[in-house]
Amino acid sequence: MRGTVLYGPRDIRFEAREMPRIEQPTDAVIRITATCVCGSDLWPYRGLQPIKGPQPMGHEYCGVVEEIGSAVKSVKPGQFVIGSFATSDNTCPNCLYGYQSSCVQREFMSRAQAPILRVPLAEGTLVPTPGMPSDDLVPSLLATSDVLGTGWFAADAANVKPGSTVVVVGDGAVGLLGVLSAKQMGAERIIAMSRHEKRQKLAREFGATDIVIERGDEGVTRIMDMTNGVGADSVLECVGTQESMMQAIQSTRRGGYVSYVGVPHGVEFKGEKLFYTHVHLHGGPAPVRRYLPKLIDLVLNHTINPGKVFDLTLPLEQVAEGYRAMDERRAIKALLRP
Amino acid sequence: MRGTVLYGPRDIRFEAREMPRIEQPTDAVIRITATCVCGSDLWPYRGLQPIKGPQPMGHEYCGVVEEIGSAVKSVKPGQFVIGSFATSDNTCPNCLYGYQSSCVQREFMSRAQAPILRVPLAEGTLVPTPGMPSDDLVPSLLATSDVLGTGWFAADAANVKPGSTVVVVGDGAVGLLGVLSAKQMGAERIIAMSRHEKRQKLAREFGATDIVIERGDEGVTRIMDMTNGVGADSVLECVGTQESMMQAIQSTRRGGYVSYVGVPHGVEFKGEKLFYTHVHLHGGPAPVRRYLPKLIDLVLNHTINPGKVFDLTLPLEQVAEGYRAMDERRAIKALLRP
Repeated sequence: MRGTVLYGPRDIRFEAREMPRIEQPTDAVIRITATCVCGSDLWPYRGLQPIKGPQPMGHEYCGVVEEIGSAVKSVKPGQFVIGSFATSDNTCPNCLYGYQSSCVQREFMSRAQAPILRVPLAEGTLVPTPGMPSDDLVPSLLATSDVLGTGWFAADAANVKPGSTVVVVGDGAVGLLGVLSAKQMGAERIIAMSRHEKRQKLAREFGATDIVIERGDEGVTRIMDMTNGVGADSVLECVGTQESMMQAIQSTRRGGYVSYVGVPHGVEFKGEKLFYTHVHLHGGPAPVRRYLPKLIDLVLNHTINPGKVFDLTLPLEQVAEGYRAMDERRAIKALLRP
Repeated sequence: MRGTVLYGPRDIRFEAREMPRIEQPTDAVIRITATCVCGSDLWPYRGLQPIKGPQPMGHEYCGVVEEIGSAVKSVKPGQFVIGSFATSDNTCPNCLYGYQSSCVQREFMSRAQAPILRVPLAEGTLVPTPGMPSDDLVPSLLATSDVLGTGWFAADAANVKPGSTVVVVGDGAVGLLGVLSAKQMGAERIIAMSRHEKRQKLAREFGATDIVIERGDEGVTRIMDMTNGVGADSVLECVGTQESMMQAIQSTRRGGYVSYVGVPHGVEFKGEKLFYTHVHLHGGPAPVRRYLPKLIDLVLNHTINPGKVFDLTLPLEQVAEGYRAMDERRAIKALLRP
């Protein structure tokens, strides 16, 4: 089998790898139908996050079960399944509280940009669809695996409710699907911050009512102007830098909610400053597993079409071009077909 | 009139001051029945928070209205009233969202350790009692003005619910009244962190089910042991230092709630660390005004007795001894009677 490995900054190789097989009774092995490149993959790709050595890549996946370990009862060979980037037993206290991405047995997936994938804790991690989905639904089902689940968590953690005024900082796939999620949750006004025409268009398609192109302090001023000086009820921080985090906090009304769902890179909060903003702050690795059954339903009944974030589809062996296109912002998100 | 002024570290003077009078039509002038020294007064008293020059002190107060400005309709001369440390118009958007301590017209009070006090925005700031309360209720009514209101906000912001497991970090008056508040909100288990016998006793009286004397990492280990390795649902951070904040965050379960209600001094959060803890974080200057009507009711109908935090009562002119006693931890909180 060949799979994707990152060797160093901008050095992605698609090369021979050992064939995954059942290692634990709780494992499943699946044949990937579709996988993709994540915005978070770009941090190590750009050399902004160190790697210790050659690093197998990929954590978004859907596909058909090939084989299961002896302890796996809830999924069967031949079923179409979707899993999250974080494995979970779905039975530990953290899972039962709905934070499966902090499962006590959690492993972060990182070998999914390949044709075959071993999934640990398969019983608690994988969610099967009722039958074999039609191929046109595959991009949207793949999106539930991470970007949609993360955008949904961003909206949920920012307490988006019917009638809310929402700001989304970040026009990557997660931010765009944060817009879609906020719309589904009944937000009245959704302000997407983007200066990229194609992404602005998709944001509007997903439910954005306003686009703001300014950033930083100017962006904050614009949001304040648009909300009569009050700030937004809910702000989704979908970038992970100090600038985006400060922009998010300062755009929020007193007593409002800020969520952050991308791994923060170099972000620091000064306690005293945060204190006087009076915001609620919640985030972390999205507990996608909590939302998967609902999100899969929304896709299967054609309520949402999150797969639109994939504006580039490549054969898996051209994965390096997928990284390049996203790095250069030529593509929002690259889908890969083995 | 004589009032309290801080001149520098540990230099409190009770000296001649100009008699307060109505300056704006929205003002009231009240004759103080009781005032007190706040834990937060100790930061500048100890020289840990700079002052620009001689600083009039005091922001907790209750008393009888002497005079009102022409725009004040909701309180009348002769009424017994309680106000918060932050003035509020109670009509601006921030107030209507329940964050009166971020009122767009907010002023922080700082002249209440005196016999007479001018209260700006009296209409939105002061809450009258139904009649003249009996003198034995005065300490508890005074407590609603700040420490109880702040402890109540700490419990509310940490999402304390019936059945919750709660940890309170800090055994000052706010922490102790955080215990009382959590009990009122139906918490099942309330763990007070204190190594001070008298405060432990009061914590138990207010509803603490457990006392933990360890601090820092050892304190976290104890909480984890007591919660089967999961952490608490709600943790109230009532100190304001880096150590207490880290202790609070690390004692919280994934998806749990941390509140912080004392002005943070030198506290910094690393974004990436906070991310993986999966906690909710909320705090700020307590919007006491939101809770005042309810808290006054609870005092007047003898449901709660928060005035027990006052273990020292002094004539107002001995205010300097009140500061000393609290600084040396001989007293939990000093009540001052003009």
